[in-house]
Amino acid sequence: MQTAGPLDAAFAALADPTRRAILARLADGEATVLELAQPFAISQPAISKHLKVLERAGLISRGREAQRRPCRLEPAPLAAANTWLENYRRFWEESFERLDLLLDEMKAQQKRPKKGKRR
Amino acid sequence: MQTAGPLDAAFAALADPTRRAILARLADGEATVLELAQPFAISQPAISKHLKVLERAGLISRGREAQRRPCRLEPAPLAAANTWLENYRRFWEESFERLDLLLDEMKAQQKRPKKGKRR
Repeated sequence: MQTAGPLDAAFAALADPTRRAILARLADGEATVLELAQPFAISQPAISKHLKVLERAGLISRGREAQRRPCRLEPAPLAAANTWLENYRRFWEESFERLDLLLDEMKAQQKRPKKGKRR
Repeated sequence: MQTAGPLDAAFAALADPTRRAILARLADGEATVLELAQPFAISQPAISKHLKVLERAGLISRGREAQRRPCRLEPAPLAAANTWLENYRRFWEESFERLDLLLDEMKAQQKRPKKGKRR
């Protein structure tokens, strides 16, 4: 039942808001480390560290040009994580349905005249 | 752009094969720590530690019965993680399409007579 490796690395890499924001930025197109560091109040070495985690997880790749080495989004690990999560869709859909039913019930009760409640 | 908290905890909790296997077991129904520990070659305290991580991430809840305290799956954080990943669906679908095109091209080339290749 235990699957090792790629999914562990993908989920671990996604467990950080800066790394998720980097991926969101790369969804708009390739970017260099400098461009990626700009919107964050953290140093370039700190960004480079995050990029290494993303790269090891296969979530980004980096160009070969010596100076720029632009980063790009690699979606395969996101697809793998999504596939794993999809196994549980029926659970959250059921709980949304229960929530909907509860809300409908509450609305119906609010529509009833107040004195009806006391009977 | 940075979203904190719940998603971090959910993704971090999912970054471990034993914890994912525990959730898979709970998808079949509630289970006690003892029942959860059974299929794994690890100690009950180790399982309890994993359960604490899952509970803090909101991925499981535990019953109130003093002795048994059965665990149950709580799908909301899985839904949240899925929602985040869905933003990237177009990327992996595009790359699957590119893969399909490449495979079609390869098949078409295989069908052509060999001497055609040399022209």
